[in-house]
Amino acid sequence: MQADVFKLSMDNPGDVSALAGLIENGTILAQEIVAFIGKTEGNGGVNDFTRGYFTDRLMTMLSTYLNEPAESLARRIPCILSGGTEGVLSPHYLVFVRKTGESDGATGALAVGTAFSPALDYRHVGTREHALSVAKAVEAAISDAGIRSLDDVHFVQVKAPCLTSERIAILHERGETPPAPNAGRSMALARAAGAFGVALALGDIGEDELSDDLFLEDFQRHCDRASISSGVEVEANEVIVLGNSEGWTGNLRIAHRAMCDAVDLTAVQAVLGDLGLAATPQLDASEWDRVRGVLVKAEPDRRGRIHGQRHTMLNDTDIDAQRHIRGAVGGLVAGVIGDTRIFVSGGAEHQGPDGGGLIAVIAASDTADINQQTAGA
Amino acid sequence: MQADVFKLSMDNPGDVSALAGLIENGTILAQEIVAFIGKTEGNGGVNDFTRGYFTDRLMTMLSTYLNEPAESLARRIPCILSGGTEGVLSPHYLVFVRKTGESDGATGALAVGTAFSPALDYRHVGTREHALSVAKAVEAAISDAGIRSLDDVHFVQVKAPCLTSERIAILHERGETPPAPNAGRSMALARAAGAFGVALALGDIGEDELSDDLFLEDFQRHCDRASISSGVEVEANEVIVLGNSEGWTGNLRIAHRAMCDAVDLTAVQAVLGDLGLAATPQLDASEWDRVRGVLVKAEPDRRGRIHGQRHTMLNDTDIDAQRHIRGAVGGLVAGVIGDTRIFVSGGAEHQGPDGGGLIAVIAASDTADINQQTAGA
Amino acid sequence: MQADVFKLSMDNPGDVSALAGLIENGTILAQEIVAFIGKTEGNGGVNDFTRGYFTDRLMTMLSTYLNEPAESLARRIPCILSGGTEGVLSPHYLVFVRKTGESDGATGALAVGTAFSPALDYRHVGTREHALSVAKAVEAAISDAGIRSLDDVHFVQVKAPCLTSERIAILHERGETPPAPNAGRSMALARAAGAFGVALALGDIGEDELSDDLFLEDFQRHCDRASISSGVEVEANEVIVLGNSEGWTGNLRIAHRAMCDAVDLTAVQAVLGDLGLAATPQLDASEWDRVRGVLVKAEPDRRGRIHGQRHTMLNDTDIDAQRHIRGAVGGLVAGVIGDTRIFVSGGAEHQGPDGGGLIAVIAASDTADINQQTAGA
Amino acid sequence: MQADVFKLSMDNPGDVSALAGLIENGTILAQEIVAFIGKTEGNGGVNDFTRGYFTDRLMTMLSTYLNEPAESLARRIPCILSGGTEGVLSPHYLVFVRKTGESDGATGALAVGTAFSPALDYRHVGTREHALSVAKAVEAAISDAGIRSLDDVHFVQVKAPCLTSERIAILHERGETPPAPNAGRSMALARAAGAFGVALALGDIGEDELSDDLFLEDFQRHCDRASISSGVEVEANEVIVLGNSEGWTGNLRIAHRAMCDAVDLTAVQAVLGDLGLAATPQLDASEWDRVRGVLVKAEPDRRGRIHGQRHTMLNDTDIDAQRHIRGAVGGLVAGVIGDTRIFVSGGAEHQGPDGGGLIAVIAASDTADINQQTAGA
Repeated sequence: MQADVFKLSMDNPGDVSALAGLIENGTILAQEIVAFIGKTEGNGGVNDFTRGYFTDRLMTMLSTYLNEPAESLARRIPCILSGGTEGVLSPHYLVFVRKTGESDGATGALAVGTAFSPALDYRHVGTREHALSVAKAVEAAISDAGIRSLDDVHFVQVKAPCLTSERIAILHERGETPPAPNAGRSMALARAAGAFGVALALGDIGEDELSDDLFLEDFQRHCDRASISSGVEVEANEVIVLGNSEGWTGNLRIAHRAMCDAVDLTAVQAVLGDLGLAATPQLDASEWDRVRGVLVKAEPDRRGRIHGQRHTMLNDTDIDAQRHIRGAVGGLVAGVIGDTRIFVSGGAEHQGPDGGGLIAVIAASDTADINQQTAGA
Repeated sequence: MQADVFKLSMDNPGDVSALAGLIENGTILAQEIVAFIGKTEGNGGVNDFTRGYFTDRLMTMLSTYLNEPAESLARRIPCILSGGTEGVLSPHYLVFVRKTGESDGATGALAVGTAFSPALDYRHVGTREHALSVAKAVEAAISDAGIRSLDDVHFVQVKAPCLTSERIAILHERGETPPAPNAGRSMALARAAGAFGVALALGDIGEDELSDDLFLEDFQRHCDRASISSGVEVEANEVIVLGNSEGWTGNLRIAHRAMCDAVDLTAVQAVLGDLGLAATPQLDASEWDRVRGVLVKAEPDRRGRIHGQRHTMLNDTDIDAQRHIRGAVGGLVAGVIGDTRIFVSGGAEHQGPDGGGLIAVIAASDTADINQQTAGA
Repeated sequence: MQADVFKLSMDNPGDVSALAGLIENGTILAQEIVAFIGKTEGNGGVNDFTRGYFTDRLMTMLSTYLNEPAESLARRIPCILSGGTEGVLSPHYLVFVRKTGESDGATGALAVGTAFSPALDYRHVGTREHALSVAKAVEAAISDAGIRSLDDVHFVQVKAPCLTSERIAILHERGETPPAPNAGRSMALARAAGAFGVALALGDIGEDELSDDLFLEDFQRHCDRASISSGVEVEANEVIVLGNSEGWTGNLRIAHRAMCDAVDLTAVQAVLGDLGLAATPQLDASEWDRVRGVLVKAEPDRRGRIHGQRHTMLNDTDIDAQRHIRGAVGGLVAGVIGDTRIFVSGGAEHQGPDGGGLIAVIAASDTADINQQTAGA
Repeated sequence: MQADVFKLSMDNPGDVSALAGLIENGTILAQEIVAFIGKTEGNGGVNDFTRGYFTDRLMTMLSTYLNEPAESLARRIPCILSGGTEGVLSPHYLVFVRKTGESDGATGALAVGTAFSPALDYRHVGTREHALSVAKAVEAAISDAGIRSLDDVHFVQVKAPCLTSERIAILHERGETPPAPNAGRSMALARAAGAFGVALALGDIGEDELSDDLFLEDFQRHCDRASISSGVEVEANEVIVLGNSEGWTGNLRIAHRAMCDAVDLTAVQAVLGDLGLAATPQLDASEWDRVRGVLVKAEPDRRGRIHGQRHTMLNDTDIDAQRHIRGAVGGLVAGVIGDTRIFVSGGAEHQGPDGGGLIAVIAASDTADINQQTAGA
């Protein structure tokens, strides 16, 4: 097995031409695509329709190649998008491809697995049950990836369902108490449940310790490999597991680091070092093609201070706090990476240290035979 | 002569208590204050009243110590504020103090000079005449600072008048053609005029080359030591010159670097190196007190790309482009400096390379006797 | 006793020149000023500093005429500002003046009373205790206004304290459970408590019925004469009561109407009719001077629909929902009134019908002797 | 010939289910659809992708019924969308249907015509040539509508191409001077050209008087029946003409009125009166189904005042001025109409009086046989 990752630019949220071109010219076989992670240029909030627009166009385009309805594709190929390209960030998407029968490159290479949980009962959104559901799906995705040691998992992306006013009404009609009073709170709880679910699957917490009393309360508890988003558009948990595995070949590797706070430049440099990339301080332009994906979670420090100084993100009625933090952390990471196509997502509760987050990077090893297929780089 | 710089936090745009405390306890003599540069937490646009609020409170407070009306103080002590603490940036202000009769520390230390030009005729706003007016004021401020070699000037902050609809109406009544069709355009032209005025005073351009045809047109022309803001609240050009001078003593020094683009991490590391500070990659917390001021100008690349990748700042109807760039560059610089009290100002036309900008840092040398007066650090 | 109301424009949130001019020319005696209600041009949110800026300038200016420190004035003269002049709304302030010894005009005229409650213990913010505290202050203000029949009260403006993260921390230190988990929730609860407090004082609800279980839950309960704002800047409840009273003379009267929803044009026309003003459909320009104050509360319908059609205010990450509703209702009311200096405030929980709000208008009767003092009209 | 208009709601910008349902149940024949006008819930600016998303979904859906590629449909069926449902406005779209062979209802009924101009050479964008091109297309659409008297034309919707940085670059390469320095200016000029083009076609201005010196300069010149939008997505002028014609039958009629300013409630009431609808002051709910379309153009007064009072729309860095005005005027018009599905579009240069705009309403006559097909009402 061999994974490949393509980092593709988009001109607008309806533009899937870069992928279509690679399918047309044979670089990518449509049936080998297993997942997408991307950033679109909306506001990243409830009324960000750029995610739906892009997914719609992507699945419609793929359906013409795969002879399968777009709706069906959307239920088996995770497409997890984060809205908001604040500051220097550039709209883009990562295409994860899984090839069989190839054997170039060393073993211990990047492994990709995916899984979908069963539909989650609305009464469990953001609860311990939700975490257990995520944990099972993560285990399935690890198995799908053929990763044997949990230490080899470096990044788990989850998209988890949340409540909406309609779903809350359904629970009330059923005579049940909704696990959250409104959509916004349920999204935060769902992200917490997702993080604890990943932690459970990765052995970072024991099942007996798992309690939803910890969710959004005990921020000392965190999983440095969990990246969770929550949205109304899914009924089940969607999972993408990224790691390294002896069963996979190729020149790609993944590494990750926790970020202590929103200005943790050291973590960014360190994760590159883990992959044999030297940023001094910025990665040389000749190395940019080696970096196939940069995945970051971040959060405005809820205590209102960074390194002891007040920040104003949480009290701003004009700009959403998540937009602020994505712009700032995006600027920091882009300064090191050089390529501004960086996935930075907010809402990092329990995903990395409190007030910080995490970073994962996928990079090609420094060989002469670096895959020339990284079009759009 | 000896300069001191205090980096003070504010809790809100009406909070001048940090300075009041330092005056009360004798750390700062009110009559020795010569200038202010700061960041307030407004939107940085036309309807940002946090700058006026802070200036009003500051001058009112000082007037009680100096027995001089606030309006009069505002006309002799430059107080140049930039609105917008996007992302990790923290509201703060630098207080520049000039002491005589002291002689501790080496010579060749930080020198501070200020000057006000005569009121600028509205018909000259943003023209060659404006640049000449700025140049003269810069020369006066250099002289005030006692800096002999132009190479020793590292940062020139100018606040330049712009047009308003009222001022345009006045010109029409006088039968004259306004030099810009609206306030927004006149602000950009005034910043350009300011940058060329500084360039002329510093010998970066000859007076015969100076033409307003270059303004906002020839972006190859830039001055890497000019930081210009433009506002309706001034009638004259206000200038603060910062440099190093043999005539000044103390342990403070200033250095500057051009920033090639919005992700120029190298420049940020380099300017610290110029001052003997090693950020590996972030400045150690034990060194934060040494950094007395960080002054940055930046700009969303008007060509729409950074390192070849599309950015979305210039087409965003929800968030002003200058807010985007301040947040991103603030995140980058804070990652190196550690302290989030960083002055990042947008509108960097001709102030540093096109699409980039510049950074200047004031720091104390690494001696045991680092001034303990840096309250608020 | 005679009340007068001046509707004054401001050029920016630091501009108190209109009032200063009227004091200078003797139109207003500074010692007769008893209250202010106004709209400033900030965003109306937590980081809206235009309210503080204006209050600061106002009290500083008054202190020069009254020989009393600004801080002391702020504790006895209520100055209740709402930020946000979205759409056609124009920044302005109403100055309420109380004159004695005059007797022109009929009795039954506009009466104004004010009161301050004792400082509210933080553990009571947004609870039944808070409502009781407000009720007592409203009773004191009614008494201050000399209004005998509760039916003669038409508008009660309250500014109520809320929690902040600091205040929550203080409660935790005292070993007490904060009545709300965060500042935002406490502001909504404080507005609810204020509305129920006014309802209690006006006899719209009995003390035995009063329970904080109703707050933000039973929206069938509402007071159509309560206008509540909540802010961190106060420790006590500040109250302004407006009504008509036999004990007062003059040509001013006040009337109010509930607004059923955000498009309730009928209510706006009706309240003018109550005052003998005919808007057909817009008030004639010759009548604008008669309208001395228009006070409106409004709210985005929390059920997401208006007249059965979806609105998008509550899901907008770019523009705060309160900014949306102020702009829309401001446009509606201005269409009838003609003068765009209208006080429209959001956060109308329990203040008027669910999804709607209320409107109160102060107008001069149609006599030849309409007070010529309405400068700025 | 008979026109019908369906006012359909959308749940999100990708939701075309209301129209799909009406096609599925036979209420609408897909081949009889001739035009769309609608409002989507984006920001209405350059980065508003809700317009493209909706058009994409709409044309894709229609193509399945019409056996014609979506791209081809988009080139022959005008779909003119305005982004921004500020305040009470509700996302919706009007479907214009043209039926032949029917003869119920009186003659002199609503007539609909459409036309596309040839692709406009970029060097003509926003110039006199552009106006002439629009005029010809309007004449073609009037002819298509079978309207004989120009007085019977009540509303002309145009979508006109503008410049982009790419198009400006193409002109520079061809050695030609672009007619505008940037995209934003070219959009305003294109709207002006469109308005003058409509004016020319309707006889409101003579061809000898037509000069692009008037564009964005002489605001006394305006056409009260022209509604122009400008966008990068078109290469040709798209035109929809709406009027009444003896050659058409049915119970629908259209009327229009100029709006003098942004609070012109009188005009809104008057246009309903023209159609035999009495709003006293709001249209009774029993009449809402009769109103098939409300089309409004509006503009923040560029002189900064409304009825002599300052507005703050043009200086707001947080909220775009067009968003402000749409919300305010939407609130005003909704107060009269009752149904919040109102098309309010900004950028009204030369489209109605300076600082105002225009309103057109399509309504069914008061007969027992009002078409029951107005689903979604």
